[in-house]
Amino acid sequence: MRIDLNSDLGEHYGAWRMGDDAAMLEIVTSANVACGFHAGDPVSVLSTVRAAADLGVAVGAHIAYPDLVGFGRRPMTPSAAELEADVIYQIGALQALAKVAGTGVRYVKPHGALYNTIAFDEAQAAAVIGAVKAVDPDLALVCLASSPLVDQVRAAGLRAIPEAFADRAYEPNGALVSRREVGAVLDDPDVIADRMLTLVQDGVVVARDGSEVAIEADSICVHGDTPGAVRVATVVRDRLVAAGVTLRPFTAEL
Amino acid sequence: MRIDLNSDLGEHYGAWRMGDDAAMLEIVTSANVACGFHAGDPVSVLSTVRAAADLGVAVGAHIAYPDLVGFGRRPMTPSAAELEADVIYQIGALQALAKVAGTGVRYVKPHGALYNTIAFDEAQAAAVIGAVKAVDPDLALVCLASSPLVDQVRAAGLRAIPEAFADRAYEPNGALVSRREVGAVLDDPDVIADRMLTLVQDGVVVARDGSEVAIEADSICVHGDTPGAVRVATVVRDRLVAAGVTLRPFTAEL
Amino acid sequence: MRIDLNSDLGEHYGAWRMGDDAAMLEIVTSANVACGFHAGDPVSVLSTVRAAADLGVAVGAHIAYPDLVGFGRRPMTPSAAELEADVIYQIGALQALAKVAGTGVRYVKPHGALYNTIAFDEAQAAAVIGAVKAVDPDLALVCLASSPLVDQVRAAGLRAIPEAFADRAYEPNGALVSRREVGAVLDDPDVIADRMLTLVQDGVVVARDGSEVAIEADSICVHGDTPGAVRVATVVRDRLVAAGVTLRPFTAEL
Amino acid sequence: MRIDLNSDLGEHYGAWRMGDDAAMLEIVTSANVACGFHAGDPVSVLSTVRAAADLGVAVGAHIAYPDLVGFGRRPMTPSAAELEADVIYQIGALQALAKVAGTGVRYVKPHGALYNTIAFDEAQAAAVIGAVKAVDPDLALVCLASSPLVDQVRAAGLRAIPEAFADRAYEPNGALVSRREVGAVLDDPDVIADRMLTLVQDGVVVARDGSEVAIEADSICVHGDTPGAVRVATVVRDRLVAAGVTLRPFTAEL
Repeated sequence: MRIDLNSDLGEHYGAWRMGDDAAMLEIVTSANVACGFHAGDPVSVLSTVRAAADLGVAVGAHIAYPDLVGFGRRPMTPSAAELEADVIYQIGALQALAKVAGTGVRYVKPHGALYNTIAFDEAQAAAVIGAVKAVDPDLALVCLASSPLVDQVRAAGLRAIPEAFADRAYEPNGALVSRREVGAVLDDPDVIADRMLTLVQDGVVVARDGSEVAIEADSICVHGDTPGAVRVATVVRDRLVAAGVTLRPFTAEL
Repeated sequence: MRIDLNSDLGEHYGAWRMGDDAAMLEIVTSANVACGFHAGDPVSVLSTVRAAADLGVAVGAHIAYPDLVGFGRRPMTPSAAELEADVIYQIGALQALAKVAGTGVRYVKPHGALYNTIAFDEAQAAAVIGAVKAVDPDLALVCLASSPLVDQVRAAGLRAIPEAFADRAYEPNGALVSRREVGAVLDDPDVIADRMLTLVQDGVVVARDGSEVAIEADSICVHGDTPGAVRVATVVRDRLVAAGVTLRPFTAEL
Repeated sequence: MRIDLNSDLGEHYGAWRMGDDAAMLEIVTSANVACGFHAGDPVSVLSTVRAAADLGVAVGAHIAYPDLVGFGRRPMTPSAAELEADVIYQIGALQALAKVAGTGVRYVKPHGALYNTIAFDEAQAAAVIGAVKAVDPDLALVCLASSPLVDQVRAAGLRAIPEAFADRAYEPNGALVSRREVGAVLDDPDVIADRMLTLVQDGVVVARDGSEVAIEADSICVHGDTPGAVRVATVVRDRLVAAGVTLRPFTAEL
Repeated sequence: MRIDLNSDLGEHYGAWRMGDDAAMLEIVTSANVACGFHAGDPVSVLSTVRAAADLGVAVGAHIAYPDLVGFGRRPMTPSAAELEADVIYQIGALQALAKVAGTGVRYVKPHGALYNTIAFDEAQAAAVIGAVKAVDPDLALVCLASSPLVDQVRAAGLRAIPEAFADRAYEPNGALVSRREVGAVLDDPDVIADRMLTLVQDGVVVARDGSEVAIEADSICVHGDTPGAVRVATVVRDRLVAAGVTLRPFTAEL
């Protein structure tokens, strides 16, 4: 049994700090690193990828819509050409920073509104997939588990990495419970850790109606933007390790 | 006899146009392509590098201070770490766009205030040189001819490409006449073309006091941001070709 | 008979130029001036409002989504609080520049995607209306003629100025023909001028099926971003004046 | 005896937080509120000015160079026209937000590199002074105590408010000890509070050589960007109040 743990890192911007990259890089096996469009000035991104390289954490490009003030969380409707070029630009910028840090970009994970949009919007997804393939067809693309994007990525010949969210509740059909619903976000570290162990061992999570739902997940996303979040991530990691699960980047299999 | 002609291209930004890239790519052998910090949104940059690739024009990264509203023309004082990371980021972004376009980034040319500053500011120059070497030590760096930067680049083990400016007057010591002086910028296409032919044939230009000054130049910069500028560039090119000068990218020798 | 002619101005950004403000300010009676979110650096905006003040052209705040690279043309989904604060910020910035220029901001016109969105999206419209009222309840709000926004603005106690577009074809129900349709944009200056004269005289335009449709319009929008557009605007103005129509800002009635 | 306490507030940007505005607004009498150029998205600025209005804290425009990623801390060299227009734009944006919050902009304080530059650079200072006067000649301008700017502001007919920094060491000539020197920044709350009480009572601070230096200060700047800074500000306030000093905005005298 093995799994990858990923987290969103490199999300500082100039004088502003976001999250505890140093702590999270001791926990996760893959780092989704901001590329400057929703967060991530070049200096802080370089610092994060250097730390990731030192610890053997795999680096992924956390691409986003161009919306710093909205932190990439607001849906946008770029043209296919705009989205494709924006994705290429961001991956390239991170590739150079990663190379200088002694590592490389191994995968791509869309951020925020772009992540949620391409999980279901075939046209925007096609633009992202095309951009990733054009830059490097060996890059994996991290996708929302159980979303149509997983198959679209695979049909395009790219490696899809479906991921689960440690702290989110699931619907019986495998979808995430909307954040607008009560109970959408879990916060008890032990409950979360138990759920993720079950997911790794049995491939299922308990949905909010009590039923078990199968989730294909090659990676688990843990958050690190609050002290509480770092503690949850730590408990998840410890529970998995204690149960004999090997934590390693999904890219280690490439 | 041979020489390279370079020009600043890819300087659109979204709905705003700057210069006639299509015309200039028929004239020059090297294209300094904006990387997004002073100009150059990803869509228009991708379009420019595709056109450059089609025509066999060498692509260079036209790196700049982060100052869109000032078009990179205002001196700034980033820290060494900021400048180094900014340069890496910009080169990487263009590398990915160039790769997708079927070409690559062959050299680096600083833009505007960064160009003028590092010609004489050893500390900022060191940050740029360090960044370029870290990304790719085979990249050449285009420098103001007769400036201290040329030797600093070579001492660092990078290839320096000193360049002359077709439409600028020179001081007897090889420096450019300041733009604040009358006569700093030349506009007669025939005068300019004759001067550049003399430079290529004899390695000298006539300074503003009438004396001849030796200028080491491996490339000539021509502008393309006005219809008049495109005509000047055309006349320069035609004069050189008519005299038997081979126009080709300096990177062709790499 | 009288009418107002408005045009989008102040849309430069730093070194980039857009449109011929000097020419258009001789033609129009109201200037929709960019406020920095889709275009308009402070220096060029100040220059435009000074020219407008000199010519007695009324100044309006051409507010937009925060999207320079997309020129405010891409739909966005800010929260109500974000949109309201963005609108207040933009109006205030222009108010200070206008005051320094010896004039003031008389009205507000949303730009691009924001214009099209609030014509029909009641929630975003409410945020804009609330912001305008909070800044200055005497500001008029320019709206797409025949759209639901006109009544929403009036119900909120603000002055609504429905406007027609000189160079656009209309559906029999008073809607604009979509730009995706053939014939959506007209380009014959004489045809356009005749249509606008009919609109002012009879309150109708001929729709694309040949029927007449009543359009309530207190202002006519003319474009100035190409030499052809400036010529169209000139012909429209001359035709109206020759027919005895008084051209004056709608704000003159306030 | 009375004095004003001011602090830099409203320095969030979208999802990024900076400082504890709620805590500081309970301590200070004047709030220097960011205007969007170095920090301060419209939503968070509106929230800060609303809180300031509720508590009767005077609002000032904390104007800056346009440098979000550098947080306005990097010297820049805008032209006089650029700087003047940038200042007008920022004041106006904050004026509208302040008006909506039920208050107004009472003064202007330059931020970071702009603050340090205009304390001694007469040309940039003249541009700022000209902009402030043009927007509203009743606005006061907060200046570094003992700097040439104080007299320049007064000679221009504006009200100058010289300010001391609570946590900074002073040279015998009244200048701040450079941050590059050991001991430039003080951190013992009691030492700082005693120094500020002496300043208010006797008009002097003890310089780093032990001598007393006279400082004309109508306001004291306290920081709030760390928990430690908030504690220092609290101790300063409490010490002053306990000694019978009245804390009130300098603008209360206008």
